[in-house]
Amino acid sequence: MTTVPDKERLLAQVGFAVEIDKLKRVLRRNMLMDGSRRENDAEHSWYLGMLAMVLGEHAPPGTDLDRVTAMLLVHDIVEIDAGDTFIYDLTAVEVQEKAERAAADRIFGLLPEDQTLALRALWEEFEARKTPEARFAKALDRLAPMMANHHNEGGSWVRHGVTADQVMEKVEIIREGSPALGDYATEIIELSVARGHLARSRA
Amino acid sequence: MTTVPDKERLLAQVGFAVEIDKLKRVLRRNMLMDGSRRENDAEHSWYLGMLAMVLGEHAPPGTDLDRVTAMLLVHDIVEIDAGDTFIYDLTAVEVQEKAERAAADRIFGLLPEDQTLALRALWEEFEARKTPEARFAKALDRLAPMMANHHNEGGSWVRHGVTADQVMEKVEIIREGSPALGDYATEIIELSVARGHLARSRA
Repeated sequence: MTTVPDKERLLAQVGFAVEIDKLKRVLRRNMLMDGSRRENDAEHSWYLGMLAMVLGEHAPPGTDLDRVTAMLLVHDIVEIDAGDTFIYDLTAVEVQEKAERAAADRIFGLLPEDQTLALRALWEEFEARKTPEARFAKALDRLAPMMANHHNEGGSWVRHGVTADQVMEKVEIIREGSPALGDYATEIIELSVARGHLARSRA
Repeated sequence: MTTVPDKERLLAQVGFAVEIDKLKRVLRRNMLMDGSRRENDAEHSWYLGMLAMVLGEHAPPGTDLDRVTAMLLVHDIVEIDAGDTFIYDLTAVEVQEKAERAAADRIFGLLPEDQTLALRALWEEFEARKTPEARFAKALDRLAPMMANHHNEGGSWVRHGVTADQVMEKVEIIREGSPALGDYATEIIELSVARGHLARSRA
């Protein structure tokens, strides 16, 4: 048998890795862009990491894009325990927060302590939206489903009766992270309303 | 209508983003750790990004882990056109290389030219395995399915009749990127053989 340095650390890291495989089975409300099935949290997190890489120039100057990427890879892991919440369901959002904190304790707690603290800090930074990195990361998280709905004839907007007024509130979150992407999101909404894929307001 | 700076750049970036959504539909040979379904390339890429974060200390000192992460997020995008190849199918691997180069031309070519070059360079660095970053990234790419098979009673090893001799060749690739993870992979193989989840050699 071979010997591995820091064997206990490595086994804790592997235990965490085995646990987070479950994120691939947490389903979101929105569909893939081709409408074939619902998206899961793991592939969504990859997609946001790619958006950070490709749209990074639209973040404010000086934004640490590597930390944005790290935050995006980590941001949904708590949903392994707490599940996904549809962002237009306000009651659920409050209950969700408590469940997510408990999930963060349990799941990040599987890691060696220094890494527990580091990943938890990334997740809390994302949730608090106080740094440019967190605001840009959240902007991408809000933009991605808009892009998917836009390319999928309204997608989850149509299925759940979401209106342009409601989506515009989310655009403000995008604009706080990136004015240019806020403008782009506004254009998406106008186009979706014009094409009949998004109702302007509740009739 | 609002105006977006660098509108043409942004639209090229969005075109690329829409295209790479397809990576969520490219299926790999291995299953999720719970054995419920095959893994797709997008969630696999997220998983490797997380492994880079959590196992990064097992890379050689001085390895740029942010570049490792970027490489891992990008490394399978060419499979949107070229499909996934099972690493134990040697004939397919050669044909695959040509298809992947054509895919890289087409897909990375959707981006503004500076980004086309940057993402293509990341992908080529990964494939060439000459830098510590690429060797560590490739090690994680080889380790992840071993972990999944180990936690899934042999998984794709059993289904495709793969033997310990064949897997050990892949362990050398892991060891080149990280001696500690090479040792760990060796342990996984020994355990899997002992449990009857992996045949020692072709009977």
